[in-house]
Amino acid sequence: MLHDPLPGADRVSRLRAGFPETDALLILDEKNIRYLTGFTGGDGALMVGPDWLTLLVDGRYATQARAEAGGAEIFEFRKRGEGIAATARRHGVESVGFESSVLSVEEHLRLKELLPEIAFLPLPEAFQLFRAVKDDGEVDRIREAARIAGEALAAVRGMIRPGVREMEIALELEYRMRRGGAEQVSFETIVAAGANSALPHATPGRRPVMDGDCVMIDFGAVCDGYHSDETCTFVVGRAAEHQREVYGLVREAHDRAIRAIRAGVSCGEIDGVARSFLAEAGLGGAFAHGAGHGVGLDVHEAPRLAAGREELLRAGMVVTVEPGIYLPGRWGVRIEDTVLVMEEGCEILTPTSKEFTIIER
Amino acid sequence: MLHDPLPGADRVSRLRAGFPETDALLILDEKNIRYLTGFTGGDGALMVGPDWLTLLVDGRYATQARAEAGGAEIFEFRKRGEGIAATARRHGVESVGFESSVLSVEEHLRLKELLPEIAFLPLPEAFQLFRAVKDDGEVDRIREAARIAGEALAAVRGMIRPGVREMEIALELEYRMRRGGAEQVSFETIVAAGANSALPHATPGRRPVMDGDCVMIDFGAVCDGYHSDETCTFVVGRAAEHQREVYGLVREAHDRAIRAIRAGVSCGEIDGVARSFLAEAGLGGAFAHGAGHGVGLDVHEAPRLAAGREELLRAGMVVTVEPGIYLPGRWGVRIEDTVLVMEEGCEILTPTSKEFTIIER
Repeated sequence: MLHDPLPGADRVSRLRAGFPETDALLILDEKNIRYLTGFTGGDGALMVGPDWLTLLVDGRYATQARAEAGGAEIFEFRKRGEGIAATARRHGVESVGFESSVLSVEEHLRLKELLPEIAFLPLPEAFQLFRAVKDDGEVDRIREAARIAGEALAAVRGMIRPGVREMEIALELEYRMRRGGAEQVSFETIVAAGANSALPHATPGRRPVMDGDCVMIDFGAVCDGYHSDETCTFVVGRAAEHQREVYGLVREAHDRAIRAIRAGVSCGEIDGVARSFLAEAGLGGAFAHGAGHGVGLDVHEAPRLAAGREELLRAGMVVTVEPGIYLPGRWGVRIEDTVLVMEEGCEILTPTSKEFTIIER
Repeated sequence: MLHDPLPGADRVSRLRAGFPETDALLILDEKNIRYLTGFTGGDGALMVGPDWLTLLVDGRYATQARAEAGGAEIFEFRKRGEGIAATARRHGVESVGFESSVLSVEEHLRLKELLPEIAFLPLPEAFQLFRAVKDDGEVDRIREAARIAGEALAAVRGMIRPGVREMEIALELEYRMRRGGAEQVSFETIVAAGANSALPHATPGRRPVMDGDCVMIDFGAVCDGYHSDETCTFVVGRAAEHQREVYGLVREAHDRAIRAIRAGVSCGEIDGVARSFLAEAGLGGAFAHGAGHGVGLDVHEAPRLAAGREELLRAGMVVTVEPGIYLPGRWGVRIEDTVLVMEEGCEILTPTSKEFTIIER
């Protein structure tokens, strides 16, 4: 296991420096709280002032918060809103920046009622990039998660054969990831065979694998809070020429996007590389999602690699590249790797070969 | 597996009848959408008018939505807000009720910008009780989930012995639940040994079970979308007198609360039965969470059994009863069953005996 201390204090300083115009920031996203303090529990709130840091938790998490979040003052609340109000008043706060994509309308209304004198300011969308550039410790964790996941897939590949159900493969893959050291799986593993592989977010069901199926497996492991994300699409038994052809096109879109990745390129540009290639091949309409997304404490986080996204990639960002083609009622192909953006190019962190692969019956 | 059709149309009528004063309701909570339409995918929105029902999904879920949500018109959006705006305009909507605990401030601001002429009205808190009374099909699913979970626990009990790590027990329990037919686990299984059992929401770690430990196991299975929730606390090897005594008190609080459950009693009253008993025994301060919560498509849903909650229990509600005592740094005891509220009394759905149990070394 990995043991380097997470540099919470540096992260808090960096966050504070980014928002000098507000008296305090109110952080509710659990992963942001973990990133800043090390606290891994739920239902908390973190308030960040110019020279103070208060982690608010309810009674269930008080002991854990004291153990994990050494750098923060711990405030135990009965109702979160009241704890936030008390903390804001104690520090004479007049303006609070908050994560507008996380705070619910309900809690927002309650806070405005409790603190009518305080200005609540939504943090700009760019705030979401706050965790996007990973440090070495974070990259190590993602790499380890990807290694565990890849080994688990290699171990269960032998069971992918006609008659075995999607859910059986998914369960064994998840079990192997966790036996292999994953603390959790990144998300509910997708194992989608045949026509189900045309559903980008299929849930593994009782459908058995059949000869000639595309079998799409989208999976990941969590290591010390950090996620991996990878998708392989195999063909079982005998491949149709059309499957081989579409696979080749998706693979080429994937490879071209990966070759385009380097610091300074915009996220939309990477999406465009994959999308325009598939469109020119006559398959544009069948690629109905973005080309990728950031990966870290969340399996989906900033930046998004999608049309129109102007954020620039920076060295240390970790993103997926995952073009897919879906032919409803028939089958689909998605190929996904997670990569580390570097000044020149990128490093692929997910270990499984993306060569066209027929699994023998 | 269970195959009775989910009565989506009745549910939509009931929902509509509850809010005659708004032109339309905007439903974003995934479980509410599933409850009303059968759609099991994510990132959607459901709009409910007096004589129309539109499910909005993005491209990844379009095929799945058409297959699952037979009663709804399917609208495929590129941006959710724009899809909601287009649907509202098409139906001449002037007021929209929305789930204020689900809608984020960010999306609320965007919707108000896209639809400046429309009044957005937070649905009252009582809306959360909308799914609280279960029909027979729902109760069957919860009972089946509880059965699967209980059998899995019985199967792994033999591995609970000194030297085995918390995470190993948790993994085997989850694997057994899924092999036994659970489509998922209800939540990340808690296996907390020794001092970790004093953390109400501990994460299973590398700590091995030791002689004399309390081992708290909080676990559940999901069957066709419906959750079970149960907690057992065992003592391994030799029990201290104090463990036996505290277990007996928590058990008595649990039993008294269960005996108090029937239709017409308030949720706060049930909490009070357990809480006042433990307070009189001198342990009030160590019971730092509510006595229970509703269970269904979410593992935590309305109603909450907590101090001051005035909602009345109704026949068909399914709730947990879970008093716990936590002695920081030492150990804890929580005992939890899931029960079906009836006109007179209740039926316990979770199968494991809550007798004081010492697991022999």
